[in-house]
Amino acid sequence: MSASELRPEKRGPLAGIRVLDTTGVVVGPMATLILAEQGADVIKIEPPEGDLMRRLGGRPRKPGMSPKFLHFNRNKRSIALDLKSPEGREVMGRLAETADVFVSNMRPRALQSLGLTFEALSAKNPRIVHCTISGFATGGPYAGAPAYDTIIQGLSGVAACHAEVLGEPRFAPFVLTDHLVGIVAAQAICAALLGRERTGVGEAIEVPMFENAAAFVLCEHLDQRTFEAGGHMGDPRIMTPDARPLKTRDGYICVSANTDVQARAFFDAIGRPELKTDPRFVSVTARLANVRDYFAVRTAAMAERTTAEWVEILRRHDVPAMPYHTLHSLLDDPQLRGSGVLTDEVQKNQDGQEETMLGLRHPNRYSGTGVPESRLAPRFGEHGDEILAELGYGPDDRRRLGGRDADAAE
Amino acid sequence: MSASELRPEKRGPLAGIRVLDTTGVVVGPMATLILAEQGADVIKIEPPEGDLMRRLGGRPRKPGMSPKFLHFNRNKRSIALDLKSPEGREVMGRLAETADVFVSNMRPRALQSLGLTFEALSAKNPRIVHCTISGFATGGPYAGAPAYDTIIQGLSGVAACHAEVLGEPRFAPFVLTDHLVGIVAAQAICAALLGRERTGVGEAIEVPMFENAAAFVLCEHLDQRTFEAGGHMGDPRIMTPDARPLKTRDGYICVSANTDVQARAFFDAIGRPELKTDPRFVSVTARLANVRDYFAVRTAAMAERTTAEWVEILRRHDVPAMPYHTLHSLLDDPQLRGSGVLTDEVQKNQDGQEETMLGLRHPNRYSGTGVPESRLAPRFGEHGDEILAELGYGPDDRRRLGGRDADAAE
Repeated sequence: MSASELRPEKRGPLAGIRVLDTTGVVVGPMATLILAEQGADVIKIEPPEGDLMRRLGGRPRKPGMSPKFLHFNRNKRSIALDLKSPEGREVMGRLAETADVFVSNMRPRALQSLGLTFEALSAKNPRIVHCTISGFATGGPYAGAPAYDTIIQGLSGVAACHAEVLGEPRFAPFVLTDHLVGIVAAQAICAALLGRERTGVGEAIEVPMFENAAAFVLCEHLDQRTFEAGGHMGDPRIMTPDARPLKTRDGYICVSANTDVQARAFFDAIGRPELKTDPRFVSVTARLANVRDYFAVRTAAMAERTTAEWVEILRRHDVPAMPYHTLHSLLDDPQLRGSGVLTDEVQKNQDGQEETMLGLRHPNRYSGTGVPESRLAPRFGEHGDEILAELGYGPDDRRRLGGRDADAAE
Repeated sequence: MSASELRPEKRGPLAGIRVLDTTGVVVGPMATLILAEQGADVIKIEPPEGDLMRRLGGRPRKPGMSPKFLHFNRNKRSIALDLKSPEGREVMGRLAETADVFVSNMRPRALQSLGLTFEALSAKNPRIVHCTISGFATGGPYAGAPAYDTIIQGLSGVAACHAEVLGEPRFAPFVLTDHLVGIVAAQAICAALLGRERTGVGEAIEVPMFENAAAFVLCEHLDQRTFEAGGHMGDPRIMTPDARPLKTRDGYICVSANTDVQARAFFDAIGRPELKTDPRFVSVTARLANVRDYFAVRTAAMAERTTAEWVEILRRHDVPAMPYHTLHSLLDDPQLRGSGVLTDEVQKNQDGQEETMLGLRHPNRYSGTGVPESRLAPRFGEHGDEILAELGYGPDDRRRLGGRDADAAE
């Protein structure tokens, strides 16, 4: 009896939803990671060479299992299919009949040649939600152009926002637009599944990376350009030089004091009560107009004591503040461990010995449906035989269709 | 007849879903912006002083309508309610009976004192999905501590990732964690609504900012620390100094060449075919181990020609590349205008004269359900009377309950 049968109520909000995922690297796998953690049965359909991220995502402990691959693919099942071969198409066709969602980031021509357009799949399964994560929306002049995270960061204004602060274009130190648009796609897929409850039929959805990234940037930074041609762009509270973790005597601290109550408490906390009536700082509007001065006051004050002293003083004054974490100190944070998001995974290796690794878990809580037990990312093709058996293929057919050695692409 | 009745099929995937939103600033409004654009009826419940973002989000053209407020609140309706008053509670109680979703970022004690816990609301309406966006997950040591974007950026490793690249901690030049976790919350809400289709009842969901931000950072950057205590953290492909928009003779360009085919094509394109057989660069694994050298080759090559020349040459060789946009040049991008994400909104002001503003639209496409007509962000309390009338209140009650001057908080 599986864990989910023992606790039927903790199978996740998406229990019963089947997702076919033909994507690789980050944007698609991030979308389906969320769905998998919420209980969807995500079938990762890997090409004969495997998801590129198996090799691109950092030095692996086992072949084909890079750290980034592990973290973006937990809770999924993997089957290797060559979608260009008759056998691959046959299995894909059967899978599509059983699925609620199909996700790809192929361009229209590739979908066409593989028989995987919305029209083709919905003819077999009218309830299927067909999600294409594209680089650029269909119909625009760049439609069909290749898109990768850094290209989208450079084109969408993400790098330009860094230039506003740093004086030169830089990328965000994440696969930011892939990662972000993956979350956007998971949301759009669930919205379309809800729409299906009303209409009775699935639909095709397109989630374009560039447009999503640009909208993300612009809704924060259109600023005065919203109202007038040539108007100032860039949120002044974010682009001002002192908007940064503030140096203390022994480290860094982050402080936030946006409301009038918080700002007055902050001036008391730093022993500058006279600033409470300074016309530059008396209201939200005044502090916004004088944001450089306001943030400079904060910077000067924080340099005078240690981080722990300031955290304590500011807490006493009800001013929100927290220390700054390095990547390594973050792992010792009691909240992160306490909430179960960061965990030591223990698994047996092929020799029966226990190995541990650091793993991540879904951060959100669902009081009724819960989340299912966490499972490690799949080896290449690990679940091929199991999935083929579920589709009703007998042993001979399974050998014919899925006889791939699980280590071939690793 | 309204536009949505004329085109019943284009009401959005979430048509028929009602959302009560008591949040302000960015994280909650971002969550409900997505739901509103997908057709949900989002009722923005504003306190007597209005959403802080009306004043904090940049210099407004009209009082209380800052640019950032405008962009994060389009397609919503606004009602002003003092939830601490008996009148406010009365209206809130009736609204809760009609709603599918309730969203807040109040701490548990505030929800308790206002009678807005999941237990209280589900007693009246068992199908309600009750979403709390918290700073820190309940149960951990920081639960209940105040959380703001910059504090979460500093604590969750976002600022630390910038330190890896820049040598000192910096914030991402966005309200990144608010903005991101808002999208996460919209996704979690839709997942819970799907769960409700199966279970028949709503549930409480918690979306903690810190845990979500830390998971975002760590699934990219745990790297070797996944496997061993003290192991290296930070994706080397992202943290390497030359991972940035590359200087050309007249600007910047972004290039991506990750697969073997792309890497070989890139070496041809820059006139260095001998590098195709250089052992440092012959495979994904080799280029990952020598990422500094690989990226340094790219940097050196790009300096030799103009952006337009390289874009043309790289396109001919099938190497993904795009120019870098500044914030202002982004607005002239033909793809962004062509796909309709950036539009000139024309509206009549109170004197009947036309005013224009730059507006944003939902970036995703839904072939069946579409998205509803876009509406501008609401003035403070703009829809109070209309919403009270829908709840069945007569004119006298509406005056008693909602007689707030729409400009009071602006």
